[in-house]
Amino acid sequence: MIVLGIDPGIATTGCGVVREERNGDLVSLHHSVILTPKTDTLPKRLFQLKQEIKAMVTRWQPEEVAVEELFFATNAKTAIVVAEARGVILLSLFECGVPIHEYTPLQVKQAVSGYGQADKKQMQEMVRIRLNLAAIPKPDDAADALAIAITHLQSRRLGMSRVG
Amino acid sequence: MIVLGIDPGIATTGCGVVREERNGDLVSLHHSVILTPKTDTLPKRLFQLKQEIKAMVTRWQPEEVAVEELFFATNAKTAIVVAEARGVILLSLFECGVPIHEYTPLQVKQAVSGYGQADKKQMQEMVRIRLNLAAIPKPDDAADALAIAITHLQSRRLGMSRVG
Repeated sequence: MIVLGIDPGIATTGCGVVREERNGDLVSLHHSVILTPKTDTLPKRLFQLKQEIKAMVTRWQPEEVAVEELFFATNAKTAIVVAEARGVILLSLFECGVPIHEYTPLQVKQAVSGYGQADKKQMQEMVRIRLNLAAIPKPDDAADALAIAITHLQSRRLGMSRVG
Repeated sequence: MIVLGIDPGIATTGCGVVREERNGDLVSLHHSVILTPKTDTLPKRLFQLKQEIKAMVTRWQPEEVAVEELFFATNAKTAIVVAEARGVILLSLFECGVPIHEYTPLQVKQAVSGYGQADKKQMQEMVRIRLNLAAIPKPDDAADALAIAITHLQSRRLGMSRVG
């Protein structure tokens, strides 16, 4: 079972691909960020984002995808533009025909660290340990995307996943 | 010059098509709403929205499109889902290759009513008068979309439009 985790953003979207082995081990296949230039218009950036999301699905052929839900930030303007990017990501994945699951930031924290109060550093360290990596995956948004993929694989085992 | 005005939403997106004649008269060619069913998943609704936006552009061949920017509502959850829809609308228009312009709700009020304090009823009445219609266009979201198209045509005359 291969899962693509996505942490949506307009400037930076984190992507992480995790495979669950037959014995339950989790293996990190890929992590990266999709970047869109601030100098481009918003519609053009959304188009670039769509193309790269589709390329990611074509390349890794995930059986399921997990996308983080938006946490309502104090900065309303930022939240709106991230939501605009997230809408395009959901559309792109729908067009690829891959089942989409959604998780809140709190669900990701609880799944990966075992409780909801973990800080960013602790979360990243847990991702490193769970995927048996030598170092914490970089950049941060890519590590977050791996955490989302791990969350989905864990939810599947527990029969808790929800189709978006 | 034909302009398509769009008032973004997830359940209801208003669309209004206005033509400016050589003598400056504004003629309403079409107004309607795109509806997506609440019973469908968000990704599927976004896909339906994209298809209908593209069909609208194909049918009316607007030379330019005007899309309302999001006003930050008190209901954060609503704002997020409207932004997700708006991202998909911007993407769809970009793929159609039609120039996109964006206006805030305040800009639309000022352009259509001449001041920023007009209420919904006054705005609708101004749209009716400006387009020389016998009755106020229905439903409300379609009237709002006509107001956005009028705003863009007026901004063009004043050389104030901004490419999104």
